[in-house]
Amino acid sequence: MASTKKINLPEEKLKKLGDELVTQISRKQNPSMKFQTRALSNIKYSKQTKRLELGKSMTERSFFNLGHSKKFLQTLEVAAVTKNLLKEEKHASLRDVFYQVKRTIPHTNVNIVDEQAESDSVIEDLELITGLSREQLNINANKNGSIAGKVIIEDRGDIIDWSKMGSGGWSVPSNVEDIKFKKVDAKFILYMEKAAVWERLHEDKFWNKHNCIIMSSQGQTTRGVRRLLQRFYEEYNLPIYVLADLDPWGFYIYSVIKYGSIALAHMSEKLTIQSVRFLGITVEDIKEYGLEKHLIKLKDVDINRIDQLMNYDWFKDNKAWQKQLIELKKLKAKAEIQALSARGISFISEKYLPEKIKKGEFLD
Amino acid sequence: MASTKKINLPEEKLKKLGDELVTQISRKQNPSMKFQTRALSNIKYSKQTKRLELGKSMTERSFFNLGHSKKFLQTLEVAAVTKNLLKEEKHASLRDVFYQVKRTIPHTNVNIVDEQAESDSVIEDLELITGLSREQLNINANKNGSIAGKVIIEDRGDIIDWSKMGSGGWSVPSNVEDIKFKKVDAKFILYMEKAAVWERLHEDKFWNKHNCIIMSSQGQTTRGVRRLLQRFYEEYNLPIYVLADLDPWGFYIYSVIKYGSIALAHMSEKLTIQSVRFLGITVEDIKEYGLEKHLIKLKDVDINRIDQLMNYDWFKDNKAWQKQLIELKKLKAKAEIQALSARGISFISEKYLPEKIKKGEFLD
Repeated sequence: MASTKKINLPEEKLKKLGDELVTQISRKQNPSMKFQTRALSNIKYSKQTKRLELGKSMTERSFFNLGHSKKFLQTLEVAAVTKNLLKEEKHASLRDVFYQVKRTIPHTNVNIVDEQAESDSVIEDLELITGLSREQLNINANKNGSIAGKVIIEDRGDIIDWSKMGSGGWSVPSNVEDIKFKKVDAKFILYMEKAAVWERLHEDKFWNKHNCIIMSSQGQTTRGVRRLLQRFYEEYNLPIYVLADLDPWGFYIYSVIKYGSIALAHMSEKLTIQSVRFLGITVEDIKEYGLEKHLIKLKDVDINRIDQLMNYDWFKDNKAWQKQLIELKKLKAKAEIQALSARGISFISEKYLPEKIKKGEFLD
Repeated sequence: MASTKKINLPEEKLKKLGDELVTQISRKQNPSMKFQTRALSNIKYSKQTKRLELGKSMTERSFFNLGHSKKFLQTLEVAAVTKNLLKEEKHASLRDVFYQVKRTIPHTNVNIVDEQAESDSVIEDLELITGLSREQLNINANKNGSIAGKVIIEDRGDIIDWSKMGSGGWSVPSNVEDIKFKKVDAKFILYMEKAAVWERLHEDKFWNKHNCIIMSSQGQTTRGVRRLLQRFYEEYNLPIYVLADLDPWGFYIYSVIKYGSIALAHMSEKLTIQSVRFLGITVEDIKEYGLEKHLIKLKDVDINRIDQLMNYDWFKDNKAWQKQLIELKKLKAKAEIQALSARGISFISEKYLPEKIKKGEFLD
């Protein structure tokens, strides 16, 4: 599937927004913008698309409305900053945008924004208004993550071979929209939540032996990593397996990649990957791989989180996942990926992963 | 200066530890190990070496001592795990080592370790006992950080050109001991606490225009990054400048790189870099670069931290640093690196940094 980036023409979309407002003003109308409401009440899980999505409720933001006018100004200000970034072909972080917007409204002592949360929120609105992702607006998210595999890319004019990156690997940028894939020689992608596990598999040249790509960030998956995974799926149809701890937090990392998150429900289409599957650690693995003595007791906060997960729409009707969650709750203990190290330092790459992948033991 | 790695011969040192214990046993002595005490009471700042260091107090850990025997066992167990890692030429994370050690002592219901803090502590003891760093014992710390510059390295047989890494850069591994520098074309290193700032400078090709290396981790500097900085200083005598927020946390990031930390006082010699200098943000920069309107109010926790820093031995007698701390406290506000974005997205790379470096405005 071709990237949709060039068709969107970010600058054109921003110009269109401005043109519409100018037209409204010239018609002596109240300048206003209309977009899907970003509120918990308007977020639902769609069984059809299998994603967290925004519902039909719409927000109108107009200038001559005491409750809206500041947000209206903030939105236009961020749009102006963004247009400038696109024009200059430069990228900014959320924090940079905050500082570019944070100033006093002339002839007042009121700041356009006081907290970064305000500019962040408006950036998300702008994603909805323009239909463009933050990355397409040249606003970068956090940078984190390493990657290795038999893949050659072109990025900012450099040809980069991910199979020749030494022990460190290639550092995943926060924005992967402009990367060109030149050669992709891989049968699947293994994504893991922990950089230390990535280092283990990389030292064992797992990606070479099993013809795959290994990718990690640390903790919650960054947007750059999610978009990179999605591009591999869309452009090369590569299966993606998630390797995470057997605990509610590991399950949730998988859940966000697959179904989206409440915070980014308006971006689900651009960020979620339905084909992603959970490889482990599963409850069954404990017995299968002799991890009984290497478990760690769950805390109350973990147990509560399990209950929450059980009631999420996308886990609710899923028998396999309900089983995992019920068993995990009974077990009252978690199994971390690194518990496999108790069986030998390369047990994960020599036995656990090859067996799981061969048997096709995935949770969907 | 040549690397001391090969001379240490980590396996030999571990073998020596075992041999000594065997000798004691064969002489029917109480097996024991002796090493510098790792306790706050034994950590001091040395004006001579300008480092946080351990004092003269020694700890003896012997087997036939109720208070010691478990720790004695833990120490030997971790030493055995480490010896195996060295033999297999594999690296493990702290978490991996914990799982490798975490098991029940045969014929008892007592675990060798229950918490990772126990194995971590013993690994630090082992660093003292053997005189080897954790990295030399093949135990990796956290992985984080990106790097770019006109440098070519050899790592695990790959030749890696840091000037041709696209937008992501090379991902700094947790262990940089075995990296070989093939070509280093740089006049200095700029280290920054924020990945987003690194992305800004990288997009502006700052390293190319100013013939330097740019490096970042996120928040506190990882051991891998600290060792890499130190190797550049020792092997190429490159000046290192730290770019951090004008707040006590930014100052402390610099302080740890230069003087060491309490937690790693026993490793100061291997990790600290005396020549490192603080480039900014400084109190003077606020006026000089028009940041007055882009400050953020300090919280009580920040103010308290300033007081702590003022009383640290290495800041106490340093007039320039006392001035910064006093002014910062008066200001009651901090200036983040990214506040410079308020002056324009590339203000940092086109004006701020070139001017500061040209004028040689560093804090030492």
